[in-house]
Amino acid sequence: MSHPRSAVVLLSGGLDSATALAMARADGYVCHALSVAYGQRHSAELDASVKVARRLGAASHRLIQVNLDLIGGSALTDHRIAVPEGQAPDPASGGNSIPVTYVPARNTLFLSLALGLAEVQGAEAIYIGVNAVDYSGYPDCRPAFIAAFENVAQLATRVGVEGGRLRIETPLIALSKAEIIRRGTALGVDFAETVSCYQADADGRACGRCDSCRLRREGFAAAGIADPTRYAAA
Amino acid sequence: MSHPRSAVVLLSGGLDSATALAMARADGYVCHALSVAYGQRHSAELDASVKVARRLGAASHRLIQVNLDLIGGSALTDHRIAVPEGQAPDPASGGNSIPVTYVPARNTLFLSLALGLAEVQGAEAIYIGVNAVDYSGYPDCRPAFIAAFENVAQLATRVGVEGGRLRIETPLIALSKAEIIRRGTALGVDFAETVSCYQADADGRACGRCDSCRLRREGFAAAGIADPTRYAAA
Repeated sequence: MSHPRSAVVLLSGGLDSATALAMARADGYVCHALSVAYGQRHSAELDASVKVARRLGAASHRLIQVNLDLIGGSALTDHRIAVPEGQAPDPASGGNSIPVTYVPARNTLFLSLALGLAEVQGAEAIYIGVNAVDYSGYPDCRPAFIAAFENVAQLATRVGVEGGRLRIETPLIALSKAEIIRRGTALGVDFAETVSCYQADADGRACGRCDSCRLRREGFAAAGIADPTRYAAA
Repeated sequence: MSHPRSAVVLLSGGLDSATALAMARADGYVCHALSVAYGQRHSAELDASVKVARRLGAASHRLIQVNLDLIGGSALTDHRIAVPEGQAPDPASGGNSIPVTYVPARNTLFLSLALGLAEVQGAEAIYIGVNAVDYSGYPDCRPAFIAAFENVAQLATRVGVEGGRLRIETPLIALSKAEIIRRGTALGVDFAETVSCYQADADGRACGRCDSCRLRREGFAAAGIADPTRYAAA
């Protein structure tokens, strides 16, 4: 009997990571989902991750808690900084376009935690739903960052020392939001269960006004798929 | 008036990181100390970090909590795995010598958290007290790992995007334990306040038998400095 191949999948409860999990499953992996509570404004996203992990058949699901609010510096973890509403800055406009919703070193932290779990599980890949197209201008969503972290993974780990490899898989990196939605729909993701809003209410209803809501709504429109998102009454 | 240069210093409460903090202070940095509670067997090390940060004049000291016990895989976070006593494996003996006290991806995680804080503080360096000489065989204490993480830091951050640099400083990496002890002593570290033992008791007294105790005791002997460590009665 052959040993099942396993992967760790970073799961936020949002649209992108749900699709990444569905793609990892479609790639034939036994999937260990990992969610991180890092002082987000709301827990609706984490509640969503539990539903998504169950629906998509994750073999396990862990919630790691990190009090990043002590570090601060982001509208997503510091309640004194307002989440902006309206247009996202243009990623092509240069280095000063990183928005206040950027959480310093977030993806580096997420990948570090996934790396630890991948080592313990003997996983051969880590899936992360980063996207370099509709990416809101975060530096740690770029392919060069992912390649650099893959090199760290190789050098930091037992499996690397022993000559093995651990891949960082970013199946969404070159997809538009519409393409992600089409792919996820085809693979059985129920997007009604996912929460993308930066300031969803306790019930998981989206504000409809933040960057993340705007990108998501435009994605459904472009995909020609009805938007199942539950929006809070205006 | 010139802006003071600042650094983030990872502080475990052990002998090495205390010396790294003293060296960062001697290098002229305003120091933001960062300790991580990750499900260690005891909190004596963290209590020690508070005393060390105060004595060595850290400008701030934060304690980040991460429940790595959910990931497991190490004798330091999983109480079902025994901490070995006696000789450390020889680092020259090859890839299979990584001991059970290795915490998967620990230094990657610590550096990720330090990276977030460095961004928020506008720090120009992160100090980490890793050591490649008496290093107990952990892969994430090697210079190649540090260089790889420095590359991640450059690509993951706002400061990197804007053309700045964030250095990872490893002032202990090539020092023997005896040299670290001499350097720290000269810079005012009170090693009686530090805890290195993998299984110290609630009062901070060392077991005297684990790898970490053995390396520390041999270091004081080689340095010709009286060992101030408080050992538990046999």
